[in-house]
Amino acid sequence: MNRQTLIRHIQQKKSVLCVGLDTDINKIPSHLLQEENPVLAFNKAIIDATKEFAVCYKINTAFYEAQGIQGWETMAQTLAYIPDTIFTIADAKRGDIGNTSEQYAKTFFETYPFDSVTVAPYMGEDSVKPFLQFENKWAIVLGLTSNKGSHDFQLQQVGNKLLYEQVFEKVMEWGTPYNLMFVVGATQGAQLKQVRAICPQHFFLIPGVGAQGGDVPTVCTHAMNEEAGILINVSRGIIYSGSDTHFAEAAHDAAKAYQQEMAVFL
Amino acid sequence: MNRQTLIRHIQQKKSVLCVGLDTDINKIPSHLLQEENPVLAFNKAIIDATKEFAVCYKINTAFYEAQGIQGWETMAQTLAYIPDTIFTIADAKRGDIGNTSEQYAKTFFETYPFDSVTVAPYMGEDSVKPFLQFENKWAIVLGLTSNKGSHDFQLQQVGNKLLYEQVFEKVMEWGTPYNLMFVVGATQGAQLKQVRAICPQHFFLIPGVGAQGGDVPTVCTHAMNEEAGILINVSRGIIYSGSDTHFAEAAHDAAKAYQQEMAVFL
Repeated sequence: MNRQTLIRHIQQKKSVLCVGLDTDINKIPSHLLQEENPVLAFNKAIIDATKEFAVCYKINTAFYEAQGIQGWETMAQTLAYIPDTIFTIADAKRGDIGNTSEQYAKTFFETYPFDSVTVAPYMGEDSVKPFLQFENKWAIVLGLTSNKGSHDFQLQQVGNKLLYEQVFEKVMEWGTPYNLMFVVGATQGAQLKQVRAICPQHFFLIPGVGAQGGDVPTVCTHAMNEEAGILINVSRGIIYSGSDTHFAEAAHDAAKAYQQEMAVFL
Repeated sequence: MNRQTLIRHIQQKKSVLCVGLDTDINKIPSHLLQEENPVLAFNKAIIDATKEFAVCYKINTAFYEAQGIQGWETMAQTLAYIPDTIFTIADAKRGDIGNTSEQYAKTFFETYPFDSVTVAPYMGEDSVKPFLQFENKWAIVLGLTSNKGSHDFQLQQVGNKLLYEQVFEKVMEWGTPYNLMFVVGATQGAQLKQVRAICPQHFFLIPGVGAQGGDVPTVCTHAMNEEAGILINVSRGIIYSGSDTHFAEAAHDAAKAYQQEMAVFL
């Protein structure tokens, strides 16, 4: 999906909501365990219940990989079930030397046709560039994350900057606002404005809202740009908002509530 | 596999050779394409030809993931074919927030029972620690890599150190020489000695020998410690050393030559 189309969908739905499908078989309602594929049944119900409000779905690949081949099959079937009008993210945090990153890009752009994949920057330019060579596909590079461990390296001083600021400046040289986004952790509210100043045009994928403590108004106020420019991911706060046979209705209501908070800013 | 067993195998074989199974279906001898599973047939032949000289096999997961479900099946079958006496590495470069890294650890320690997995450090402590909670399993954290992109961040000054030096010092606090190794790029010959001074006890996984330009004597001289303490990975320099029906013999001869270079230092 290209940038223009993504922005049009955001305007039409008045939403920047990304629903995170971090589906853990141990956390889904027990009545689904009698289904042939419980995780797929859960994901389909969540997609049906939330697609009116979401402009994006993010599949956390770890939860599928841990199930082995059946997990990859479920991931492929979930991806195929997501409507074509909704942007998709393989949240896979890949990155390696050039010939290996090429294989990862092939995995998540061709073998599994996602619109985008999250990428770790530690190995530098040749580890990121292979993800930027596909038309209408996106690399979403880790900039500033929302976890406690972000203090270990990302928030360390490098010369007169913090490491994550240097990551933004360097990585922006490798791609454009048409093929490159950044992960920006939302619990770091005070820093969102500063990151937007460094990087005015690129889309940010913003996790950390809901279970991790961030909130929608803070994020929209500090991180949006003129073309919206953000996708706010909520995983556990939507998909596990109900735990019984009404889980899909609960997810619908939670997604609607998030969308309505976002609409004020769009 | 525990540290003591790994060291015993190194002493018995007089080898620190890790053979990298970065098997690309486009690069294997054409006569194998008529096999039911060409990549598996290739891997089995390579393992048979090199297991006398190798103390470790490293599977680069990207090359398998790109083939989808069949790739994961091939990876599992290759792993099962490696003798139990040989250490195994899932070269997967994973790392994410805690609950997600737990799923990756489960993937590569339980679903696919490797001895170790490579881990990216950018997200800090809670992204690495879940890989250190399994008995006789290892996290191999990216310290200093061998690619050009290592200059973008790893070799930047952070306070009075370089970033990679800070990564070593921090990450060493999270694990022990019994569950934690580091990736150290061998083309950076001058730095190997310095890294060993920072980190005297831990094993290093050293890629970059062969196709990437490093050489065995330089690595052994600068990076070994009293218990060997290194695994030198060679991928393309062994597995693609022959391209016709004699590919396995060529791999055997290449592995033997590397082992003989190593034996001098053991």
